[in-house]
Amino acid sequence: MSNYTVKRTIIGQLERGTDLHNGITRIVQEHGISVGRVTGMGAVQRAILAYYDQKTMTYENIALNGPLEIVSMYGNISTRDGKPFAHVHVVLSDERGNGKGGHLIAGGTPVFACEVTIEEFDGPPLVRGFDERTGLALWPENTQL
Amino acid sequence: MSNYTVKRTIIGQLERGTDLHNGITRIVQEHGISVGRVTGMGAVQRAILAYYDQKTMTYENIALNGPLEIVSMYGNISTRDGKPFAHVHVVLSDERGNGKGGHLIAGGTPVFACEVTIEEFDGPPLVRGFDERTGLALWPENTQL
Amino acid sequence: MSNYTVKRTIIGQLERGTDLHNGITRIVQEHGISVGRVTGMGAVQRAILAYYDQKTMTYENIALNGPLEIVSMYGNISTRDGKPFAHVHVVLSDERGNGKGGHLIAGGTPVFACEVTIEEFDGPPLVRGFDERTGLALWPENTQL
Repeated sequence: MSNYTVKRTIIGQLERGTDLHNGITRIVQEHGISVGRVTGMGAVQRAILAYYDQKTMTYENIALNGPLEIVSMYGNISTRDGKPFAHVHVVLSDERGNGKGGHLIAGGTPVFACEVTIEEFDGPPLVRGFDERTGLALWPENTQL
Repeated sequence: MSNYTVKRTIIGQLERGTDLHNGITRIVQEHGISVGRVTGMGAVQRAILAYYDQKTMTYENIALNGPLEIVSMYGNISTRDGKPFAHVHVVLSDERGNGKGGHLIAGGTPVFACEVTIEEFDGPPLVRGFDERTGLALWPENTQL
Repeated sequence: MSNYTVKRTIIGQLERGTDLHNGITRIVQEHGISVGRVTGMGAVQRAILAYYDQKTMTYENIALNGPLEIVSMYGNISTRDGKPFAHVHVVLSDERGNGKGGHLIAGGTPVFACEVTIEEFDGPPLVRGFDERTGLALWPENTQL
């Protein structure tokens, strides 16, 4: 368990056509944000999300065709492979208002419009490493609450 | 890209029967919050959401009858037409737990109970203006991240 | 209406197998967080959510079998029955990316992996009490925005 304070909050938008995950990754790496939180809203032209199969320990992609609202985007920022890494989930909705959701991957999700708020936190580093039990890149054991 | 700090955080609830978007608009205008973030949860008696048709560049309304949980509400606050304006998306769920979502419009979404947190940010003004490429009222180009 | 400031932000993870609501409750009670906000993401092994029936004023449980992503978790922290209490909603998604959502109850939702951010706020106490009109444990009238 570690305590953090908010260092700064960045607000802005992603350019139309930018891949959503790649765009966020570029921002957090350019600004050297090693611990943080990302939230946002907007719309995408289409999306590829991922669902983690807890048995096979692999991500399976879900292609969502057609324009979708980004109802909410939530993610955290920590370090993976020596670089700032954003772990992001999104809730999307279609033209009938049906909710979709999942883990955002790099590629396949071009932005139509996206308004983003990124909070950078001051505090101990948060570094991801391979966790055998889940097959995921998780934070270390001493971050258990 | 602009940096902001949190000026204050307002926590409270909306009265039963208040229209969700109108209620938030009243609060941000009464308190003169020109840059901020709104989050919340609760339930609504029914809802009208909107989905943006990226081809025709028009919002289409989606009527959701019957009581729904507000699973999450997320929005940002900036200036539009000279006044504080809240751009809000909501995730709702029905009695079977099915997720719905979209862009919150003024009118048609009476609150059953709603607990709201509004963060006011200190920093450069954020002013919406018409964007030809998307047909939306977006922030200016210099806010691109 | 009351103003708050962020006192500290706690970031960490819940251990695999922990019940999601019980885990959050333990943390906020151990740390004596009487006003706050909890956000998070991850995955659960299965879930039991609740939907509030606004007519009968009772919660009805919704069992969701099988592994699900926690697309977003949002909650507030206040005092109920003299103890810190977390009111939490979650958006989940299944292997086809379909969104589910509702009110998180204690029990029935074991964590697969969950990354949590808890903000503790400084400011006036927020105490829940029974509200006759809704049948819910709400904050007092003077918190109306």
